[in-house]
Amino acid sequence: MSKDNVHIFDTTLRDGEQVPGCKLDTKQKLVIADRLDQLGVDVIEAGFPISSPGDFKSVEEIAKLIKNATVCGLTRAVRKDIEVAAEALKFARRPRIHTGIGTSDSHIKHKFNSTREGIIERAVEAVKYAKSFVEDVEFYAEDAGRTDNEFLARICEEVIKAGATVLNIPDTTGYCLPEEYGAKMKYLRENVKGIHTAILSCHCHNDLGLATANSISGVINGARQIECTINGIGERAGNTSLEEVVMILRQHPYLNLDTHINSKLLYDTSLMVSQKMGMPVQPNKAIVGSNAFAHSSGIHQDGVIKNRETYEIMDPEDVGVNESSIVLTARSGRAALAYRAKKVGYELTKLQLDSVYVEFLKFADIKKEILDNDIHEIIGSSNINAERVA
Amino acid sequence: MSKDNVHIFDTTLRDGEQVPGCKLDTKQKLVIADRLDQLGVDVIEAGFPISSPGDFKSVEEIAKLIKNATVCGLTRAVRKDIEVAAEALKFARRPRIHTGIGTSDSHIKHKFNSTREGIIERAVEAVKYAKSFVEDVEFYAEDAGRTDNEFLARICEEVIKAGATVLNIPDTTGYCLPEEYGAKMKYLRENVKGIHTAILSCHCHNDLGLATANSISGVINGARQIECTINGIGERAGNTSLEEVVMILRQHPYLNLDTHINSKLLYDTSLMVSQKMGMPVQPNKAIVGSNAFAHSSGIHQDGVIKNRETYEIMDPEDVGVNESSIVLTARSGRAALAYRAKKVGYELTKLQLDSVYVEFLKFADIKKEILDNDIHEIIGSSNINAERVA
Repeated sequence: MSKDNVHIFDTTLRDGEQVPGCKLDTKQKLVIADRLDQLGVDVIEAGFPISSPGDFKSVEEIAKLIKNATVCGLTRAVRKDIEVAAEALKFARRPRIHTGIGTSDSHIKHKFNSTREGIIERAVEAVKYAKSFVEDVEFYAEDAGRTDNEFLARICEEVIKAGATVLNIPDTTGYCLPEEYGAKMKYLRENVKGIHTAILSCHCHNDLGLATANSISGVINGARQIECTINGIGERAGNTSLEEVVMILRQHPYLNLDTHINSKLLYDTSLMVSQKMGMPVQPNKAIVGSNAFAHSSGIHQDGVIKNRETYEIMDPEDVGVNESSIVLTARSGRAALAYRAKKVGYELTKLQLDSVYVEFLKFADIKKEILDNDIHEIIGSSNINAERVA
Repeated sequence: MSKDNVHIFDTTLRDGEQVPGCKLDTKQKLVIADRLDQLGVDVIEAGFPISSPGDFKSVEEIAKLIKNATVCGLTRAVRKDIEVAAEALKFARRPRIHTGIGTSDSHIKHKFNSTREGIIERAVEAVKYAKSFVEDVEFYAEDAGRTDNEFLARICEEVIKAGATVLNIPDTTGYCLPEEYGAKMKYLRENVKGIHTAILSCHCHNDLGLATANSISGVINGARQIECTINGIGERAGNTSLEEVVMILRQHPYLNLDTHINSKLLYDTSLMVSQKMGMPVQPNKAIVGSNAFAHSSGIHQDGVIKNRETYEIMDPEDVGVNESSIVLTARSGRAALAYRAKKVGYELTKLQLDSVYVEFLKFADIKKEILDNDIHEIIGSSNINAERVA
């Protein structure tokens, strides 16, 4: 049975970049966008063109550069936003305008001081207007996670009639439980007329640590696009982690769902985004953390030595991790240092590690990356009596 | 309707500490254990007594210190392990021995070179032996996530007969999907004779980013204990995050499940564990990351200003976060610095932030914590023309 494709909509450069202190310039965005295209994402959300001249320029340059992926620009349900986005996307091989409006009662009342009918009207108008510029129009129902399903179905039906090709159902506040989010997708699949002509899209936030599980529940229940970011970066607790949803689908073939992602580029891409944005990835981050494939307990090591599959469900090489790719920099912690020191033969005690770490930081401040040879030198300069055990 | 209590079994000091380069000494463990007791956890897994004299001592000292929580020690299904754990726990007010064995075909064959019958026999013997020392005996079925449900039910039934009070069903490799893990719990609830005399426990790993969702699915389906760690630390991609499962239950009152955790201590406890273990928490970590409650995009800020509830599902104060508790240290990134700089009135461009960050690191190397006043001084020394905007 051939697998259904789940589209990967990467929003590292838009929702992911909405992080305090993490503005990227156009040049950096182009490097990341190029990498995302190599990685095999289906859609790159390149920015929010009306928000600033810099963002406009980034979207325009990315639109010129990208050969494979659809390039998408965000707008509010506002004519000027849509015009500016269309202008920024005019060189794109596959342009998409992403427009929408808040649909929960809280948003309708507090943010728009409007009514449900008023919101539907604005949504339909925005989609129609976007459609006058591009074929591919995605509609977002902001705060869909807290929008009642009946109203959500109504607005979805109306925007499909107006020409929307993709329906984004964001859990904007990260509140939903997986079962609830999946049920919402199922309800829409079953209750929206014309739903087979559009793609349902998951856009989840991680405020309660559930973004990944919610997205997976969404696609199990009929969605066919996941909006996500490298390393799960984004405002507050961030967005769904691209690397997690991709590997979950790949490791569970019985779901009959897959993506076009070249998973061997995941680790390098994670590192690139972390460095360019100055956003560290914690050692225990799934898939791409520096410890994600590091075993330390005697019990586990023993099991792994006897048979790797006892404790590992993924081959680290499938996500581009080999031992030398756990890179040591000034941002690395003691854990990564101890792990690499062990790889080159030093079993450090806690106290020894403390001394070596101080020395390591001095080195790392000067050298961008610490290599195996440097580790010998660092340990040599640390005034400890470390024995090489291997 | 009164809520069912879900026991919080904290294993920060055992499974959490199984991280390369993160050994804690007894004194540090005592400080953390004391804090966990204040936090309100039901069980503290203090260590694996037979693994080393240091671990034995830590368990013994924690057992003496702790007034409220049950103190637990890990063992394999080996007589000597159990004797040593019992000895380490002898001063505990509420001692628990946690014993068990691998139950998946992969573990039975590759790790134990045994048969299903042989494994049941060893499990029953271990539980009976542990029971000769303490009343409270928890049994773990290692790799239960990949153990077939029928055999798992059989072994659970036998260890309950032998006196087990808690049945730990670990997803050792982090492979399960939430629906599957929940279904396993449901199966055991419905197919194990005597199950009402024991507590089912979730122990999930985060290799695919699903530990939190799996644990929640477990308790929705009848488990009443979650094994977890502060910040989700632990081997590879870590364990279930205590702070996430606690806040999910609290924010979803309709589940009728709650814990005894004093959530206002969550942020401080996260910080303490991160510092003592040298394990950084990424800014976009749910609940306790430095950005978890930081809004940056214009759209969101606008929404929050109009009505906080538009974009926030939790009051940061409920988890002990107030603005001044986002602590700046030498481990902080640009994101945290920009956030705090903004709080005291500086809107820094990317280039300005780069200069200020260099100066900040010099200050932070000398001072342990950077306060608001320091920020003015740092910006003053940075040779940039930053205007205070607020």
